[in-house]
Amino acid sequence: MTDEQVSSPAEPLRVGVLGARGRMGAEVCKAVDAASDLELVATVDQGDDLTAVSDAGAQVVVDFTTPDVVMGNLQWCVERGIHAVVGTTGFTEQRLEQVRGWLAAKPGVGAVIAPNFGIGAVLMMQFAARAARHFESVEIIEQHHPRKLDAPSGTATHTARQIARARAEAGLGPVPDATKDEVAGARGADIDGVRVHAVRATGLVAHQEVLFGTTGETLTIRHDSYDRVSFMPGVLLAVRAVPDRPGLTLGLDPLLG
Amino acid sequence: MTDEQVSSPAEPLRVGVLGARGRMGAEVCKAVDAASDLELVATVDQGDDLTAVSDAGAQVVVDFTTPDVVMGNLQWCVERGIHAVVGTTGFTEQRLEQVRGWLAAKPGVGAVIAPNFGIGAVLMMQFAARAARHFESVEIIEQHHPRKLDAPSGTATHTARQIARARAEAGLGPVPDATKDEVAGARGADIDGVRVHAVRATGLVAHQEVLFGTTGETLTIRHDSYDRVSFMPGVLLAVRAVPDRPGLTLGLDPLLG
Amino acid sequence: MTDEQVSSPAEPLRVGVLGARGRMGAEVCKAVDAASDLELVATVDQGDDLTAVSDAGAQVVVDFTTPDVVMGNLQWCVERGIHAVVGTTGFTEQRLEQVRGWLAAKPGVGAVIAPNFGIGAVLMMQFAARAARHFESVEIIEQHHPRKLDAPSGTATHTARQIARARAEAGLGPVPDATKDEVAGARGADIDGVRVHAVRATGLVAHQEVLFGTTGETLTIRHDSYDRVSFMPGVLLAVRAVPDRPGLTLGLDPLLG
Amino acid sequence: MTDEQVSSPAEPLRVGVLGARGRMGAEVCKAVDAASDLELVATVDQGDDLTAVSDAGAQVVVDFTTPDVVMGNLQWCVERGIHAVVGTTGFTEQRLEQVRGWLAAKPGVGAVIAPNFGIGAVLMMQFAARAARHFESVEIIEQHHPRKLDAPSGTATHTARQIARARAEAGLGPVPDATKDEVAGARGADIDGVRVHAVRATGLVAHQEVLFGTTGETLTIRHDSYDRVSFMPGVLLAVRAVPDRPGLTLGLDPLLG
Repeated sequence: MTDEQVSSPAEPLRVGVLGARGRMGAEVCKAVDAASDLELVATVDQGDDLTAVSDAGAQVVVDFTTPDVVMGNLQWCVERGIHAVVGTTGFTEQRLEQVRGWLAAKPGVGAVIAPNFGIGAVLMMQFAARAARHFESVEIIEQHHPRKLDAPSGTATHTARQIARARAEAGLGPVPDATKDEVAGARGADIDGVRVHAVRATGLVAHQEVLFGTTGETLTIRHDSYDRVSFMPGVLLAVRAVPDRPGLTLGLDPLLG
Repeated sequence: MTDEQVSSPAEPLRVGVLGARGRMGAEVCKAVDAASDLELVATVDQGDDLTAVSDAGAQVVVDFTTPDVVMGNLQWCVERGIHAVVGTTGFTEQRLEQVRGWLAAKPGVGAVIAPNFGIGAVLMMQFAARAARHFESVEIIEQHHPRKLDAPSGTATHTARQIARARAEAGLGPVPDATKDEVAGARGADIDGVRVHAVRATGLVAHQEVLFGTTGETLTIRHDSYDRVSFMPGVLLAVRAVPDRPGLTLGLDPLLG
Repeated sequence: MTDEQVSSPAEPLRVGVLGARGRMGAEVCKAVDAASDLELVATVDQGDDLTAVSDAGAQVVVDFTTPDVVMGNLQWCVERGIHAVVGTTGFTEQRLEQVRGWLAAKPGVGAVIAPNFGIGAVLMMQFAARAARHFESVEIIEQHHPRKLDAPSGTATHTARQIARARAEAGLGPVPDATKDEVAGARGADIDGVRVHAVRATGLVAHQEVLFGTTGETLTIRHDSYDRVSFMPGVLLAVRAVPDRPGLTLGLDPLLG
Repeated sequence: MTDEQVSSPAEPLRVGVLGARGRMGAEVCKAVDAASDLELVATVDQGDDLTAVSDAGAQVVVDFTTPDVVMGNLQWCVERGIHAVVGTTGFTEQRLEQVRGWLAAKPGVGAVIAPNFGIGAVLMMQFAARAARHFESVEIIEQHHPRKLDAPSGTATHTARQIARARAEAGLGPVPDATKDEVAGARGADIDGVRVHAVRATGLVAHQEVLFGTTGETLTIRHDSYDRVSFMPGVLLAVRAVPDRPGLTLGLDPLLG
């Protein structure tokens, strides 16, 4: 896992984890524990008291809980000057507005709320959006295990929409495609004009390829995720960054330079 | 290009080319010319007389002409004891029967008729058919330039059918797929139960990937063709093999054994 | 996992596992348990008595133990008419001769001894050896996690040797390579004339790519292994096949058609 | 090829080509000719007079000539207020200083000098440098035809150096690698601590893959170049951009957003 601080601080950053016994929370505890510049000072889950966090002097809290408790947790942390890194889902624009309000009242406190902590996935989308305006053609191929219910994946759909927006801004027209004789489905799903293909096979985990093409060359950006521990470097990146980012940060993008 | 004869024969094999000024024929002439164990002795095209071939003492003829003249060419060659390698299209079962008849009357004379001289493509299909019975999952992704009219490609459809047959023979049921929520087309075309995805992008030439998956592992067979010269090694392989293969040989498969 | 029997037999095959509490043995127990045509009737490990296997009427035994006990186990099984599937390492030619002797004395009893039960890996090597004679160029790129001690991997070295032998048999000379100005190591390790590149990166598990090239085209065979459960389909394949294969079978190759 | 201007200007941009009969120059002429927003007004080569360019009213000149004439050409153009796009090699820091001097004397005139006009290659390097600080591991695999003299390629070496610099700036230590038992060369060439593998095979053209890895995931950026026409979109991008970029622009990077 990347370790970006150059100088080792005198004191490790004190971290508390909410939802510590959940699938993701447990991984966060392990990752914080293993990082020499972080100290795991409190682990809280359903039935535990939040005061364990403040009593332990946590400077940053990581929240992987549920939509029904996360807002209470966040308000409680912000009011006590504790920074927050949040992976819990369910943030509507209305909820984000509320969080912004709490943060405005406590200048100096930061919160990072991200739908995806996979650094690789976030960079893939970032690069895809940047490349989009320079290539005549683009298609997405995502590959997952066959137990997945939706096709294409949410990440693929999101990537396609970002690409479509970048193409529109650059004044690019539709991608060239002379197909006349198609067996239904061969050319994939059409997401805002970008073709997306969903492959399903036993043995696969979670993979995505974005293929760009122009005269005589192609550029491919591929992300392979093998395990949920792949989210941990992104969580730690946010934990280390949030004390220096007062206010609300949405998504990992701004933290990735 | 592979060069499989170990001992160099005293005399190069004498080769004539029919359709010598066509796209493929011209490449064949160049390839024969460049091979030290072959000698290009006659080049014939529309308007030329076939006797140029027999006059020059050709032992093997390569035919890349058109469906309307190929049968006449073939009969003429076989009757004169000249072996033939044929890449011209349009061979129905009825036509093949006729050719078998001519060859039966001239024991010792051979003809290789193949729809595809790409060694890589033929091996890809061969390997795919062999792997098919050992994997729970399989999908095909073919990638071509955007001027292509059909989707999926003929090669992909043919590969899918061979895989489906191999799965049926092995008693395999349908591939696992829990997809419930699909944007139309995302899961590709269904060719005999095998999903096939057709990608189109400027910069691509002709590519195909067959992905097999079972518990914890995947096997991928990929073919990339950049140029029509990729057919030449297969044509030369057939030219060198045909004198030792009396009767009719269909496709490159038996020569790749 | 593939399930190749077409008709479901009246009775499931009775299977015992030796080394049942080991890393691999435990996975075998789970896999046998999950297969509807197999019944796990005995699990034996250090300190347990082998008679548990015969008492339970096991027809096939799977042995993932250690080199110091495997010979005793095998002799015991063969004498009692129990077929064996062996993944334990350490089989020298001398040991194999001994096993052949025991089997000769008990016609009808079979043993499959294999160094690698990964169907994908075995097929990759099989296909690579078959393709080798048809391509001018070939290189191997293997990719593993950075905790691996050897470079290249044993599988890559083995694949390179098989390819080199196939090239020699086909009379192919050295692969073309005009490199004059090389930073040391750039062109990889030379294994019998085949260049092998070993990539190491966090996040990778175990991957291998064999790249073949000839004029205008390339053929790539790639194997990705994500988990040790990837060996289970191969173990079950051997368990189902061994009752019909009296005598010694070496490696999965003969079982893969 | 991408076509980024949204509104079609009343008048096409008037373009002259120096080195018009060279390999690259000829392709530039074709590409300018085919673009509806550009007009090819002058083509000059050895022995021709430069005044053909000014007489034709060229607004932009593209120079693919040789190191011994390019400085004269550039000075001549800048003095006449003609913008320049230069792909000719041989620009030392001293030469660049001279060009900056000429441009300072003619405010409003722009020059783009780039060692590589492949948009895909430039973006690959840009993305690689940005991703570098976020991944523990990184390796480069470049693949070329076997007639190439150097290994690794200049692009691969350049990419490795940029990655090494980004890692150093981020305070990342050496990549993890437990290799103890290496066949010489297996782990590739060491370029500033980044391992680079050079694959050579008939059938390949020019390809490069940068593989990044961190816990549980990998990110791969791959560029495939099939043809020297792949440089044309980059040349046209520079031609369209240079009138709005007074002074010296080095490389395509600043034009790619």
